[in-house]
Amino acid sequence: MAITIDTYKDKLIPSLEIKHRINRLRNEMEQRGLGAALITYRTDYFYFSGTSQNSILYVPLENEPILFVRRDVDRAREESPLASILSYQSLRQLPDLINEHAGRIPQVVGLELDVLPARDFFRFKKIFEGVEFKDSSPAIMSCRMKKTAFEIEQIRKAAQIAREVFEAGRNLLRLGIREIEFGALLELEAKKRGHEGLIRMRGLNCEGYSWHILSGPSGSIVSEADTPAGGSGLSPAFPMGASRRKIQAHEPILVDFTICYSGYISDQSRIFCIGELPEKFVRAYEFCRGALARILKEARPGVKCEELFWVAERMARDQGYEDGYLGLPGKKAKFVGHGVGLEANEIPRLAVGQNYPLEASVVVAIEPKVVFPGEGVVGIENTYLITDEGYEKLTLIDEEVLQV
Amino acid sequence: MAITIDTYKDKLIPSLEIKHRINRLRNEMEQRGLGAALITYRTDYFYFSGTSQNSILYVPLENEPILFVRRDVDRAREESPLASILSYQSLRQLPDLINEHAGRIPQVVGLELDVLPARDFFRFKKIFEGVEFKDSSPAIMSCRMKKTAFEIEQIRKAAQIAREVFEAGRNLLRLGIREIEFGALLELEAKKRGHEGLIRMRGLNCEGYSWHILSGPSGSIVSEADTPAGGSGLSPAFPMGASRRKIQAHEPILVDFTICYSGYISDQSRIFCIGELPEKFVRAYEFCRGALARILKEARPGVKCEELFWVAERMARDQGYEDGYLGLPGKKAKFVGHGVGLEANEIPRLAVGQNYPLEASVVVAIEPKVVFPGEGVVGIENTYLITDEGYEKLTLIDEEVLQV
Repeated sequence: MAITIDTYKDKLIPSLEIKHRINRLRNEMEQRGLGAALITYRTDYFYFSGTSQNSILYVPLENEPILFVRRDVDRAREESPLASILSYQSLRQLPDLINEHAGRIPQVVGLELDVLPARDFFRFKKIFEGVEFKDSSPAIMSCRMKKTAFEIEQIRKAAQIAREVFEAGRNLLRLGIREIEFGALLELEAKKRGHEGLIRMRGLNCEGYSWHILSGPSGSIVSEADTPAGGSGLSPAFPMGASRRKIQAHEPILVDFTICYSGYISDQSRIFCIGELPEKFVRAYEFCRGALARILKEARPGVKCEELFWVAERMARDQGYEDGYLGLPGKKAKFVGHGVGLEANEIPRLAVGQNYPLEASVVVAIEPKVVFPGEGVVGIENTYLITDEGYEKLTLIDEEVLQV
Repeated sequence: MAITIDTYKDKLIPSLEIKHRINRLRNEMEQRGLGAALITYRTDYFYFSGTSQNSILYVPLENEPILFVRRDVDRAREESPLASILSYQSLRQLPDLINEHAGRIPQVVGLELDVLPARDFFRFKKIFEGVEFKDSSPAIMSCRMKKTAFEIEQIRKAAQIAREVFEAGRNLLRLGIREIEFGALLELEAKKRGHEGLIRMRGLNCEGYSWHILSGPSGSIVSEADTPAGGSGLSPAFPMGASRRKIQAHEPILVDFTICYSGYISDQSRIFCIGELPEKFVRAYEFCRGALARILKEARPGVKCEELFWVAERMARDQGYEDGYLGLPGKKAKFVGHGVGLEANEIPRLAVGQNYPLEASVVVAIEPKVVFPGEGVVGIENTYLITDEGYEKLTLIDEEVLQV
């Protein structure tokens, strides 16, 4: 079976890394009164086991975790360093298998209630008779929020791909090219370099678009997601991002391109322009760079996440950008930054009401943007690692307007 | 606001089409004892409203449906022909808004329990006090199973894009190109022609890959999904589909490429080869074409879906292909065909235990495949419309091995 992972042996998650993650989860579980967790959501069990094969991961406070694999147990064993990996065919077998291999099932068990469908939840309730199920997602997301050195390394690799893709963009952009074609050309460059294409997001109806290309007026169109500029998209079925519009000269072209490498996400935006960008957009872009710098000045462990939102918000008001900052009035995005990792919408959120402190080792994308009704959007987005001293920029792309 | 939909005015869903769909839903609801449905899942409310903007659609048996829109109500009004489209900010407002605009909330209300997360379900339970919630997904999927003329037209357009993409593939395939790059080149061709890129699938952990390129040994690698051949993928995070393997001569190259146009999916697979394909693969490919023909001979309204699975299964046994047919022993796919529409895993399923009759107006992808351990996979897949008389092939791609 060695053929399976020949092409990505170097991407397997090391055994010590998995041990460390499981230990952190146990700490979180203990604090929240969970005796065990049944992890059913792919992103989560990949994080704690190292494999995305069709599985359910059982993690008790005591005793070793068990990965129950439904489809290819051999491949799961190749990919995951966990010691106990068993095959199963039906959820009904799990209580007995757990009792046999990991002792008595505790009274209170965690399930990811923010993503597990209600129908599946009721099935667990019926099969694990007498068990009280509580939401394990806060514990899991709290673990996943703080990135390990291994994870930061993957995000660095994603950011390096991003740098090359934005650089290639200078040669691919031309007058009259459609937004969708420009984006697809960038995507080809990205995939050649290891971009996985799919972007994971958590929660009902959260669909991951790897990229948005919004030229001129497209940049002021609002859509379903909580972002300053959604764009038109190709149809009412997927009403976000690149459209068939032909890109013109002297208009801002927002390229918001997310790269996924080994499951890990780097998120970044830049403004391209064919010919010179009119002065008012340049000024607004410089405001966005200033707002980003202002946020970063405060960005260190201990600062309230909400406060990072407000410092830039106040600056927008002071400089007369309150109308277009983070979107048009009544349709503004409610955040200026978000955690990234295995998903594009992780914690921490730099947003109103996020009253918890920023911590070292979190990775956040910060993206101040300004929208001009009917004319477009400008802005910048980088992904940063928060360190003990402050931050480190992971997305090392030229920050000037990328003029061609 | 007209700018929003300027680029896809021709793709809006007509008013009569929406009326027809809502009426069908009411019939299904009535038969299943639902007094109303609260439709929260994007694919479903897009189907019944014509917009994918962030919304919840309320459909009572009597009275007009109401679309409650959370983010951009103006855009929803542009896209949806429904008469009653209201803005809302919090789920808590819904009971009062419904009472005010659509009369008393019935005792039994449907929610999509197969996709609505448990945490959201409990929120609905709390806010709609006293209401009994039942699963509305069987009613909704039953409506969506039978395609209208409008929907079939969209799938035809997707299939036409597919035809051009597979044709372009002849010029893009070359010795030593990596699977991932060949696929990304095809994807560029597809997106230029209107392919939306994202593929929707229903249910926990069902992730839509738009394409799989499996060359030689990659074609016998099993992964997380219930398919004959999963492939290696780029990392354990996304362990399916194209890998970094360089494509060689004289090996089967499975190109399974799904196109999405206006939300609608056409699914198709062909075998490419650089130089001549060795005889045993050619014979197995001819067997797959024969198995497909055998299935189609029986494919007409009234036949049990399961029976279409068994006719090909029996043929595989008779012709000595039982070992590799639909995958290797112990790891076989459990189906030979599946419904397509707005999602890639709709009903009907041509699979064991699917004991209901095939109906006219359903659209199914049928895909007999044969796997050779360590060597690869061959097979064919087309998307068909079932008609009163039998079937019509929608995917008009050359059915020979595509040799370059």
